[in-house]
Amino acid sequence: MELLKQRIEKDGLALNEHVLKVDSFLNHQIDPVLMQEIGKEFAERFKDAGVTKILTLESSGIAPSVMAALELGVSVVFARKRKSLTLTDDLVTATVYSYTKQESNTIAVSSRFIKKEDTVLIIDDFLANGEAAKGLIEVVESIGAKVAGVGIVIEKSFQPGADEIESKGYRLESLARVESLKAGEVTFKDEKAEVVK
Amino acid sequence: MELLKQRIEKDGLALNEHVLKVDSFLNHQIDPVLMQEIGKEFAERFKDAGVTKILTLESSGIAPSVMAALELGVSVVFARKRKSLTLTDDLVTATVYSYTKQESNTIAVSSRFIKKEDTVLIIDDFLANGEAAKGLIEVVESIGAKVAGVGIVIEKSFQPGADEIESKGYRLESLARVESLKAGEVTFKDEKAEVVK
Repeated sequence: MELLKQRIEKDGLALNEHVLKVDSFLNHQIDPVLMQEIGKEFAERFKDAGVTKILTLESSGIAPSVMAALELGVSVVFARKRKSLTLTDDLVTATVYSYTKQESNTIAVSSRFIKKEDTVLIIDDFLANGEAAKGLIEVVESIGAKVAGVGIVIEKSFQPGADEIESKGYRLESLARVESLKAGEVTFKDEKAEVVK
Repeated sequence: MELLKQRIEKDGLALNEHVLKVDSFLNHQIDPVLMQEIGKEFAERFKDAGVTKILTLESSGIAPSVMAALELGVSVVFARKRKSLTLTDDLVTATVYSYTKQESNTIAVSSRFIKKEDTVLIIDDFLANGEAAKGLIEVVESIGAKVAGVGIVIEKSFQPGADEIESKGYRLESLARVESLKAGEVTFKDEKAEVVK
């Protein structure tokens, strides 16, 4: 997605070889116009996948997911990273390790909102080691629902998550694929498809 | 906001006299069409307030905030509830006690994204004791920026937050004002204004 890659080149910051900071438009400050375009791109790529629900993880996945959901005419469910007192019933959980935060979280989804009849598009802001995406897939499959695919805003292709998810046969659509962050430079991998210009 | 009140009547669950569960459309599952209408309503109510930025708190404030931001043509900043390893610089913080979760959190905003020249609309999903709203106001004012007002999706008017914020002179716009949750029934307070039908 050209608009996103331009924005990463302009405002993204390669802090080191592993960390790309995009907190000026995606995961602390949010540009709603860019989110709308990202939502349209996800919707276009998955329009024939029969999506009935989008599943994401709080917090940075919510904005792109809501915009994609608006385009696809479905609802979003965001997995919570821990249990709150008013969200106690019928929880389906998975354990997700965050390399960034160096901690494990339980992610939880109510089975009242994802049913075995659903076809679920999983959306997240980043794909690195794939821990979050794999946790969300685990949740969907333990409910018995179908995974339509995984939509990622920024894939760090030099980390193992993308290969791992594709090798398991899941459809993966990453809107920007970062090949390297060496020497403070963001280098993109060629995109597989460019649907919305 | 009539559409929101109807939705609360239809899908909200008064768990007890204090807790209104709206996880089917606002804070676990999200209805993006309702969020768009909520965003339009906030934008309409604050259209003359000179808003340059929206500030919210992860996670449930993000969806309505992004929709309002799209309408107002501004960006959203969502305060983080704790520090992450890639968000360490120039943080402005406040301490917020959550009665629901019975814990204190540090909320943090980067001063790179809210400047003293900004006029900030604070948006959140719920207003009960007002802890989150007061923490967000504290962040904005410690930066030296102006608070345009506080926009709340659901106000629990029987708890002290609303009175406290208004008595301090802040403009408060709550799209649904719940007067009572007694006997499993949701009773609304009369609305002050109905802008978008």
